[in-house]
Parts: sequence; C-alpha cells; structure tokens
Amino acid sequence: MSCVFCAIIAEQAPASVAFENDTVIVFADIAPVNPGHQLVVPKVHAVGLEDLDPATGAEMFRVAQRVARALRRSGLRCEGVNLFLADGAAAFQEVFHTHLHVLPRYRGDGFHLETGQSTAAAYRAELDAVAAALRPHLQG
Amino acid sequence: MSCVFCAIIAEQAPASVAFENDTVIVFADIAPVNPGHQLVVPKVHAVGLEDLDPATGAEMFRVAQRVARALRRSGLRCEGVNLFLADGAAAFQEVFHTHLHVLPRYRGDGFHLETGQSTAAAYRAELDAVAAALRPHLQG
Repeated sequence: MSCVFCAIIAEQAPASVAFENDTVIVFADIAPVNPGHQLVVPKVHAVGLEDLDPATGAEMFRVAQRVARALRRSGLRCEGVNLFLADGAAAFQEVFHTHLHVLPRYRGDGFHLETGQSTAAAYRAELDAVAAALRPHLQG
Repeated sequence: MSCVFCAIIAEQAPASVAFENDTVIVFADIAPVNPGHQLVVPKVHAVGLEDLDPATGAEMFRVAQRVARALRRSGLRCEGVNLFLADGAAAFQEVFHTHLHVLPRYRGDGFHLETGQSTAAAYRAELDAVAAALRPHLQG
C-alpha cells in the first residue's frame, strides 16, 4: 500500500490510535512537535482539501475539537492548542493523505511561526480588492 | 463593544468581507501573512474551542475548505493553503473570539514553523501512553 495513512487505517502499519469512528481515525504524529501531538485523518483517502468530501472535513473538525478537549483533560502538559492543516507541498504537506494536526501547547515550548511578510496592517484598499477577487468563487 | 470581531459582525467596525452566511463570516486578516489571508469567524461569540458549538465549528471548516478553493481560483498567488487555529494565549491566540486562519502559500514566501522539540521519531511506547491517556476522554 503506497499511502502510509491508508496502511494504518487498514491495520497494515502500526499507529497509536486514540479514537476512531466510521469517518475518521485519530493517531499520534510519529514525530510529535510536543508530547500529545495527534493527527485527525479521514478514513477515505483524499490528497487534500480539493478532493476531501465536505461532510468528512466537517467531521474532522468536530473530532479535532474533542481531541483538543481531551488533551486539556488528559494530564498532559497543555495550556493551549493549535489546529494546523497543510494543503500542498508549498504549505508544508508531507504525507499526501490530508490530515488535521492537533498540537498541545505550553508557554516556552519553543514552537514558533515566522513569516516572510511585513506584519504591518495592510491598506484597506488591498484587503477590499482581495475580498472582491474571492467573492465570486464563494457564492452559491 | 469590547470584542473587535463582534464589532465587525455588528457592522460597527470596518472589515473586508468575502463571504457570510447565518453562522460564519469571512474577512481579511488586517495583518496578512501573505496577500489573501482570510479569517473564518463564528457570528456567535465564542472565546475558543471549549465554548464553541460543535455544529458551528463544523461549519467553520466547511467554509474554510471553500475559501481555500476560492484562493486557488482567484488569481492570487496560491500554490498551497494552510488552515491554522490558535486556541489560548500559549498557542498564540491574540483575538479572544475564536477564528480559523486560511493562508495562501507559495514557495519562497518566507513563512516557516519552528519547534523546540527534537523532530526525531518518538518511541512507540510513549505514543501508546499518550493514546491511553486520551482514550477515556474521547469515548461516547
């Protein structure tokens, strides 16, 4: 089986599974950013957001919200939670079976984000132009 | 109104709105990581994942998936997409009205993540122990 996540779902590869239902499975990231780092993975193979059934995506988020709560109640170090999804190689996707990361966070954990752009506020006209470009694609 | 996102929803503060329905609104991040950076925001105030209605969370993801598609089709520079949600100050939440970032990405955009942990694979026993700690909180 060429997809490692499909192999896990088929129980042909090992994983530390915290939860599963008919639609998704939750298992540990093999290289956790922090202890407790989980992945919410759809059981039906989808490369990314473009070919992910929207009902399945909605279930991924519902389960991620429950995993976040479980992390806060589990006794693991968890002062906050990040949800993160990488769609496409340019966005750091490494396994091409879409997955939603649930990351327990704590102050001083060393995790950080850096951007190549100015963090100054953009001009309103620029933001309005973007909204106008997106709007026709979001109708209906 | 003390919450800036509630003020936007009430049309008492400016925003560049790309989409809205009864449940969520989509507007531009005022300090975009990359041009096109959008926020999917529930209309009913919720601080974070703990007090977010799960049906609303599911709708946030459904709409984020559509925004990702719109970004790829809009003509903006978009070779990939990240979804990101910060829940709690320790996880970099800055506006305490929960929101899902939709970030257009491209190679060489300078965005990166760094972690304070080793990125080596964890021992299976450690991952299994975490799964065992989470499992009781994910039942039912």
